[in-house]
Amino acid sequence: MQSQLKDIVMKATIVLAHPYKESFNHAIYNRVIELLDSCGITVFCNDLYSDGFNPVLSVSELGKEPSNDPLVKKYVEDMIASEFLIFIHPNWWGMPPAILKGYIDRVIRPPHAYDFPTDASGGGLPIGKLKGKTGIVFNTSNTEADRENNYFEDPLQNIWEKCVFGFCGIEKSHRKMFRIIADSSLEDRVQWLNEVDEIIKSLV
Amino acid sequence: MQSQLKDIVMKATIVLAHPYKESFNHAIYNRVIELLDSCGITVFCNDLYSDGFNPVLSVSELGKEPSNDPLVKKYVEDMIASEFLIFIHPNWWGMPPAILKGYIDRVIRPPHAYDFPTDASGGGLPIGKLKGKTGIVFNTSNTEADRENNYFEDPLQNIWEKCVFGFCGIEKSHRKMFRIIADSSLEDRVQWLNEVDEIIKSLV
Repeated sequence: MQSQLKDIVMKATIVLAHPYKESFNHAIYNRVIELLDSCGITVFCNDLYSDGFNPVLSVSELGKEPSNDPLVKKYVEDMIASEFLIFIHPNWWGMPPAILKGYIDRVIRPPHAYDFPTDASGGGLPIGKLKGKTGIVFNTSNTEADRENNYFEDPLQNIWEKCVFGFCGIEKSHRKMFRIIADSSLEDRVQWLNEVDEIIKSLV
Repeated sequence: MQSQLKDIVMKATIVLAHPYKESFNHAIYNRVIELLDSCGITVFCNDLYSDGFNPVLSVSELGKEPSNDPLVKKYVEDMIASEFLIFIHPNWWGMPPAILKGYIDRVIRPPHAYDFPTDASGGGLPIGKLKGKTGIVFNTSNTEADRENNYFEDPLQNIWEKCVFGFCGIEKSHRKMFRIIADSSLEDRVQWLNEVDEIIKSLV
């Protein structure tokens, strides 16, 4: 009976990457945790700064050998167990902060997140191992939409949708960018947190 | 006389981000150093893994205050003094490795690399402070050109050309991707290193 119950409880991993505890990213993080908790979903909270995560991939992690880092092992277990993978981070240089880039480098690794056919050199097509999961990304930015989309061409969209989720076999994903954080009012931020609610409710 | 001589010697910063000392990235790095040395150019060698660089931006580095990290200060001095900024890294997830993402986060900061008008909130257009420098990027990849360009849409191109160089006022840049590393022969790699020579000679 207990194992049946365990099987039907949904799980979500929430990964946060922001150094400032009063940031709007933290407000999104807390709101998502609250909402998922209230829905009875088990939440794994991966606050990378608060956890002191080391983002530097080592030589021994270049291949398929499991990492020796206990925090990496814990993050891998959370990711594998979760139906929903939720990433919250600011847009820094069209990329996530380094600490989250390192989560991608060190946690989303073969053979558990993707793999290559046993006879392959590593130059061929990968086999996605995270199929069936849903990827959700919340971003904050101080760049106007027009400049982001037409000058920078929003690299984060392809990075998440294709380079990360698509590579690992995740077909269902959603990304939402909130802007302009530096110029936002309290009313803006209240409204944005309500949008976070709506997005989570529509996907979970 | 000495200060005049100092002024006319060109300088280059080379930033390497790869954990494996026998990597082709290291071969490119060593070749570029050799070539620039032979041209009488002063070279600042920033081997991020070998230097033990910490890529995690701290709360106190969110604004314009200088970093307290001696290695960051050294990297900033090298960058400011150099006419040529050369980055060598593998394509990991359409982005640089986390250690180089952190170099971008922590070294390419205001007010020395870009700045905002004094009355601005941070939401407006930046003032590039690295104008006149030349940016050069050498990448390695295990992804076929067709899949990189048509499925992933090569996020690294916009990241370097626009998000980093363009943001800081660098108008002249060149990027070269070598592929497929995993399937390459010795002959391929010898030929590629010759291409590195030609690119550097054409730009320096």
